[in-house]
Amino acid sequence: MSTLSRELEFQLHEVLNVESFSRRPRYEGQTREDFDSILSAAERLAADFFAPHYAKGDANEPQFVDGNARTIPETGEAWRAFAAAGFLSAHWSADEGGIQLPEPIFRAAMAHFFTANAPTAGYPFLSIGAANLLRAFGTAELKSQYLSAMADGRCAGTMALTEPGQGSALGDIKTVAVPSDDGTYRIAGQKMFISGGDQDFTENIVHMVLARIKGSPSGVKGISLFLVPKFLPGSGKRNDVALAGLIHKMGWRNTTSTVLSFGENGGAVGWLLGEANRGLAHMFQLMNEARIGVGLIASSLAYRGFTESFEYARQRPQGRLPSSKDPLSPQVTIVGHADVRRLLLTQKAVAEGSLSLCLHASAWFEDEQTHPDPAVRASAGLLLDLITPVVKSWPSKHGCRSNEAAIQVLGGSGYTREYPLEQLYRDQRLNPIHEGAEAIHGIDLLGRKIGANNSGFQTFLSVVREETGQVPSSLENLAARLQDVLCSLESVTSRVLRGLATDPDAALANATEYLDAFGRICIAWMWLKQAKVAAAAVAEFTSDDPRSNYYHGKLQAAQFFYEWELPAAVAQLELVGSANRTALEMREEWFIG
Amino acid sequence: MSTLSRELEFQLHEVLNVESFSRRPRYEGQTREDFDSILSAAERLAADFFAPHYAKGDANEPQFVDGNARTIPETGEAWRAFAAAGFLSAHWSADEGGIQLPEPIFRAAMAHFFTANAPTAGYPFLSIGAANLLRAFGTAELKSQYLSAMADGRCAGTMALTEPGQGSALGDIKTVAVPSDDGTYRIAGQKMFISGGDQDFTENIVHMVLARIKGSPSGVKGISLFLVPKFLPGSGKRNDVALAGLIHKMGWRNTTSTVLSFGENGGAVGWLLGEANRGLAHMFQLMNEARIGVGLIASSLAYRGFTESFEYARQRPQGRLPSSKDPLSPQVTIVGHADVRRLLLTQKAVAEGSLSLCLHASAWFEDEQTHPDPAVRASAGLLLDLITPVVKSWPSKHGCRSNEAAIQVLGGSGYTREYPLEQLYRDQRLNPIHEGAEAIHGIDLLGRKIGANNSGFQTFLSVVREETGQVPSSLENLAARLQDVLCSLESVTSRVLRGLATDPDAALANATEYLDAFGRICIAWMWLKQAKVAAAAVAEFTSDDPRSNYYHGKLQAAQFFYEWELPAAVAQLELVGSANRTALEMREEWFIG
Repeated sequence: MSTLSRELEFQLHEVLNVESFSRRPRYEGQTREDFDSILSAAERLAADFFAPHYAKGDANEPQFVDGNARTIPETGEAWRAFAAAGFLSAHWSADEGGIQLPEPIFRAAMAHFFTANAPTAGYPFLSIGAANLLRAFGTAELKSQYLSAMADGRCAGTMALTEPGQGSALGDIKTVAVPSDDGTYRIAGQKMFISGGDQDFTENIVHMVLARIKGSPSGVKGISLFLVPKFLPGSGKRNDVALAGLIHKMGWRNTTSTVLSFGENGGAVGWLLGEANRGLAHMFQLMNEARIGVGLIASSLAYRGFTESFEYARQRPQGRLPSSKDPLSPQVTIVGHADVRRLLLTQKAVAEGSLSLCLHASAWFEDEQTHPDPAVRASAGLLLDLITPVVKSWPSKHGCRSNEAAIQVLGGSGYTREYPLEQLYRDQRLNPIHEGAEAIHGIDLLGRKIGANNSGFQTFLSVVREETGQVPSSLENLAARLQDVLCSLESVTSRVLRGLATDPDAALANATEYLDAFGRICIAWMWLKQAKVAAAAVAEFTSDDPRSNYYHGKLQAAQFFYEWELPAAVAQLELVGSANRTALEMREEWFIG
Repeated sequence: MSTLSRELEFQLHEVLNVESFSRRPRYEGQTREDFDSILSAAERLAADFFAPHYAKGDANEPQFVDGNARTIPETGEAWRAFAAAGFLSAHWSADEGGIQLPEPIFRAAMAHFFTANAPTAGYPFLSIGAANLLRAFGTAELKSQYLSAMADGRCAGTMALTEPGQGSALGDIKTVAVPSDDGTYRIAGQKMFISGGDQDFTENIVHMVLARIKGSPSGVKGISLFLVPKFLPGSGKRNDVALAGLIHKMGWRNTTSTVLSFGENGGAVGWLLGEANRGLAHMFQLMNEARIGVGLIASSLAYRGFTESFEYARQRPQGRLPSSKDPLSPQVTIVGHADVRRLLLTQKAVAEGSLSLCLHASAWFEDEQTHPDPAVRASAGLLLDLITPVVKSWPSKHGCRSNEAAIQVLGGSGYTREYPLEQLYRDQRLNPIHEGAEAIHGIDLLGRKIGANNSGFQTFLSVVREETGQVPSSLENLAARLQDVLCSLESVTSRVLRGLATDPDAALANATEYLDAFGRICIAWMWLKQAKVAAAAVAEFTSDDPRSNYYHGKLQAAQFFYEWELPAAVAQLELVGSANRTALEMREEWFIG
């Protein structure tokens, strides 16, 4: 079993107890063996079709040829293998043609692909999200037109939100939709940074486009959602969507990032999805899914860096311990150096903590839909809504730090393109940017999620407190630390909220710092959960039983997180609680004089 | 005047008062105008010959052609312009043919080149260091053979320390030197990661090679230093040094990184520099110079990222403040968002603080050599020796964070190759690795610099305390914070030192964390110095005088550093002081189970 498989087994079965899903009506008849065989299939596919061209895709980025994007053949082969195995629709209901796989299993399977080759896995990841939007908001006609092709891989999907002049401020979208007599719309405008916006391995592409119907209100309340295909149904003719250019990025090079021009020749034909002027709300379904997905991608890249740098560290002899003065004594492998162990523990704490958080988010998503107890459904929904910005942001930001540490373990070799660490580092750097830059999520968490509706936050506090109240004596120290930080979080939050109505600019000025502290607390919670499972497992083994190694590692990483990572949250909350105004009051004309 | 010129003027003239060097006998007759014209010349050269091919050099890395490295022509043009302007020997004594420029002026001039194009400036940077080694340890014959060619650019120099199997552990060097009858040596072995180890724009290259004379003791006490030219004097024939390969890196692509094979055909001819078996001590002169240089490069890359992202932030309109709910109100430029200001202030605090530290290190170097007061010479030498690992490490590590923030300011655009931010980020990532990976410097600082000789540390404490004792009332708050952290540093240090003799592995286990905290304190010291100058300057202007803007920015950045960056040192020192054993006790078999 691979390292990641073992880790997913722990997270899914030992922490999340996903086997219990089998007792829910929707998953009746599904067994642990079914789940495990899906994960094994994902692992094999990822190893056979995704991992081998991770470096090649980076070195041979898509080319702009005659108005189309040309990719290396391996990308299309991977796409087809993924589709043929049924992963594009594995979570769909049986009546839609899926195998109605529970969400955490499905997302855990995706972790295999992200770990092997995130840029290639980006295509199915986005397409799955676009199909989910169509499933939720499409008319029966549109669904029958596209869904089966999106399940078997003939058609891919994208999300087309960002425009050149607007970035993350979606309210300023300028793309226009004009109603046509036949009930369709003519779309005109330019979209930028559209991942997978063109490629050469599917027969068609459907873009999920945000645009403003002529005459609609300005701001976010006048945005609608449209399905705009690359090729028109029926005639099969090219729609009025042109690939205006490919964007050249630092990483994620095998995922096309495109500028798309809609309507340069009269208007691209588009179909309204859902209600007019409710497009942003509809799109948020996809965005929330994508945000959790970005967290999972970030966790996967961090995890890959951890295992790669660990393998290097245990094979590479170099130097001696400070206590060894004899130059003729043998060199130690570098995993013997305390600082290398620190770098590896940092990665383990970040990567496995983040992975755990993302899988919990999937479980809350699942619980919200299918848990038999309405109270649990409600509480899962509140937690998911509250923590989504954290799931997107914390693994992304600290994934960068984790991959930075992976390079450092290898030293000069880590900086070369002979090893995958530098590519992981470059790929990871996108995650704090796409699906909303970090600052957006701080304001979302503090200003919108907590500021507007305190019940999610109260649920969070009580769930985590409950967790800290039920620990074995060996973990009481960790639980007490987490309780302390929760108290700070609670008091700082209410202090900030008091200012939100009167001076939102000041109250939200340090929201990014708040988000980061909140994330540390969430990850600490995840490590407490993992440590509880590990402590119980360790008790089952004699001390020299090698099966206990994995669990000792979990306990040590939990302790490391509490000692080395959690204390920063205290300092961060202090800063936020003091309503620090230094950044707020900095003036443009002072920066360089 | 460019932004960097203004900054260097502040650091050199207002903080370091370099004009006072004119009163030292060595610099008699040199005026502020002389210094400023040198800096202007550097700025022009950097703009004309280095900046234009920063991106091109990255996209067209050197090629291995018929056993030689081929570079783009712009690299050689930049080298020749740099040489023709006299910068390769500007700091040399007049009797060596230099203009005996004071060290801080010379290094400040280098900052212009590093900011414009660090990879291309890497060639002269390394060559200057190699020439300094030859100046210090070469025989008269060797000096007359090579120095004038190293001054006018016909010959470049490199440092060849690292070997494939040894990395940073120099005691394990395996390259062998066998004495020959004519007083030279025959060198055989392989060196790796040799920057500038081959190129096509100088007539010759001299490698400063560490090797072990046959029969010498093992470990660091048996290493000698050799000069090994690419082409032999007299005959002009190729020496037995072969380019075995080019290493492909994430950044610094325009600097060749080479594998060199010495002695595949009988032995490369080498000349001993200095004393046999003292090679590592001799090489440390170059390494210390290079370490301060790496700090300066890191500061320069961070500074460039800061100014580039600031320019973007003040031109790019996007979004509105939280207090503005009207979607028809105009967008603000993103510098108006508090979190963007935080990202910019982080960069300003890191970059300008680091730059200040590097220039102070140059000033201590200068003072150690030329200050008229022997007590100041001694104290400068102690400070320089103590702080060199910090100068190398802190700007490098936090420069990465600074360039990360620069990308974040630009969002998606920062991730593209249309802007230089992503290249700065990739280039910066080398700095925590080369010239000794970060962990080496933590152990050097705590185990060697402080552990073996407490007088440097005591000097540091008293000099910084003196600084905190002489502040205007507006800065008393900052001074008090710094005093508090100094107290923690002092008590934690003595606690750690007590364990050093009995259990060095445990005492040094968290040395990297100690190094980082020490660095924060050094940068806080630099910001206090800058704030003092700024507070005095602000008092000279009426509040609406635009000339005060620059100084207000300094005061705000100082405050930001004390509030947002210094507190982490307290938490770090607590961890170190508690003799945390979590990384030390982590076992190899626990990492992945």
